[in-house]
Amino acid sequence: MIAIDWGTSSFRAYRLAPDGMVLDRRSAPLGILAVKDGRFSEALESQIRDWLDTGERPVVMSGMIGSRQGWKEAPYAHCPAGLAEIATAMVRVDWDRGSAWIAPGLTCRDQSGIADVMRGEEVQILGALDALAEGAAWICLPGTHSKWARVEGRRIMHFSTYMTGEVFAVMKAHSILGRMMTEAPFDVEAFDAGLLRARDDGGLLHHLFGVRTRGLFGDLTSERSGSYLSGVLIGHELRSVPVQSGVVYVLGAQDLSQLYVHALRTQGYEPRLLNPDAVVTGLSHLAARLEK
Amino acid sequence: MIAIDWGTSSFRAYRLAPDGMVLDRRSAPLGILAVKDGRFSEALESQIRDWLDTGERPVVMSGMIGSRQGWKEAPYAHCPAGLAEIATAMVRVDWDRGSAWIAPGLTCRDQSGIADVMRGEEVQILGALDALAEGAAWICLPGTHSKWARVEGRRIMHFSTYMTGEVFAVMKAHSILGRMMTEAPFDVEAFDAGLLRARDDGGLLHHLFGVRTRGLFGDLTSERSGSYLSGVLIGHELRSVPVQSGVVYVLGAQDLSQLYVHALRTQGYEPRLLNPDAVVTGLSHLAARLEK
Repeated sequence: MIAIDWGTSSFRAYRLAPDGMVLDRRSAPLGILAVKDGRFSEALESQIRDWLDTGERPVVMSGMIGSRQGWKEAPYAHCPAGLAEIATAMVRVDWDRGSAWIAPGLTCRDQSGIADVMRGEEVQILGALDALAEGAAWICLPGTHSKWARVEGRRIMHFSTYMTGEVFAVMKAHSILGRMMTEAPFDVEAFDAGLLRARDDGGLLHHLFGVRTRGLFGDLTSERSGSYLSGVLIGHELRSVPVQSGVVYVLGAQDLSQLYVHALRTQGYEPRLLNPDAVVTGLSHLAARLEK
Repeated sequence: MIAIDWGTSSFRAYRLAPDGMVLDRRSAPLGILAVKDGRFSEALESQIRDWLDTGERPVVMSGMIGSRQGWKEAPYAHCPAGLAEIATAMVRVDWDRGSAWIAPGLTCRDQSGIADVMRGEEVQILGALDALAEGAAWICLPGTHSKWARVEGRRIMHFSTYMTGEVFAVMKAHSILGRMMTEAPFDVEAFDAGLLRARDDGGLLHHLFGVRTRGLFGDLTSERSGSYLSGVLIGHELRSVPVQSGVVYVLGAQDLSQLYVHALRTQGYEPRLLNPDAVVTGLSHLAARLEK
């Protein structure tokens, strides 16, 4: 089969053996925003023509490719959802090389009735289920929009999203805080100071201003203030999530996941790193369902 | 005397009678960032040459003109500070038209020892003291960097800053939230829904993502999502400040102050609007101290 993880800014393709082993892999900076005029089939073919020519099927995709801005909208499945519910909600697209399948995103509503959404992460979680402890688990998927999901009995019960990564990027690039930062390697001491600050009273909007004042008074150099800001934001995320201790599985890109593991450990959690390739396993599980 | 309120992006000049009455006023988009190569004396002279020619003195200034990026750095006075402490810390600049005086900013430290700063607002507060109830009062100064100050016995005891206005502007202009907003008049219903959302659990980073999901699910139109975001942010500011009920004085530009008065009232405070020209009164009090 062919597994495609197709997001906003990146495209990753995997050719898998029937047992799920990765035979070949490719990636390109060909996220859905880089595909013009809806030419998704051409984009896909340009990347994996040789695999298709050998007859490899099915093609199963997840991520923003199933959003309104993608190839075809795959409506969100609703929590609680496991492999069965997500497989059932897959959407087929037909093109001149046959058919391909797109996984739906997932949605849930909180106590106030406000919706949350994920698209792509639900397949990563499906792929990680076998690595979780029996029963119930918390999974943190760090990123531009960090997700925290609750899994019980191999189903995603509910989740919530935090704009941690995007607020960091936007404040660094466009606010007065960024103007006093210089590019520098990550500084763990400054990051930890930011985590600690987030435990104080005063709220995030106040703690953000503190990045500036600590700079003004020489408490924080321009090289370290980016790491401090990152600590403040991740610290506020941890303070806001519904779980404050115990085992948390971390699933995401390597560097960011390492940062979260460190943050979780200093805040009293027991972090456990999951294989960042879980999406491949998740897509292979979905492909297996198609054949039934 | 001549009172100058000279900020990052604006310049305001007032000619005052000895009793503090405003005889003439001028303003220009000549904030300190618009003055090139430190030519502050030329900039000032270009705006008020005729007043200077008649011998009007002294010239007393406040705001970012006293910052490191301004004409001359006026080191921060320390809380608690009233008229006496702030007047003592004024800094003189000499130029070819004589002397001018710059008010210091003000600084304090919170329980964790982290500094906060204001520059200009301390003079606004001095100018508003006579309008406050006897004893103790809370003053909210909304803005790009919103300030909450505690006044006791005519002195500013401590204060804290919230990046509410800047986070709003930056998220609207540069984040995924802004991409789903269209310019539209303020919508009080959406603003109130944002205030309400801020009372929920989940934290600001999560509530920000809700701006997007409410849009995705048609709960919130693109015309209303800016007002909702504003409500979420101001709601988080109110939830973070050290006072949760009772009288709060509001001092700032008219439109934003009206918005805060509305927000404070719906959240159970008793807001009282102060004269937005308080800075003029504050500068005249400082000028009177110079002559002693």
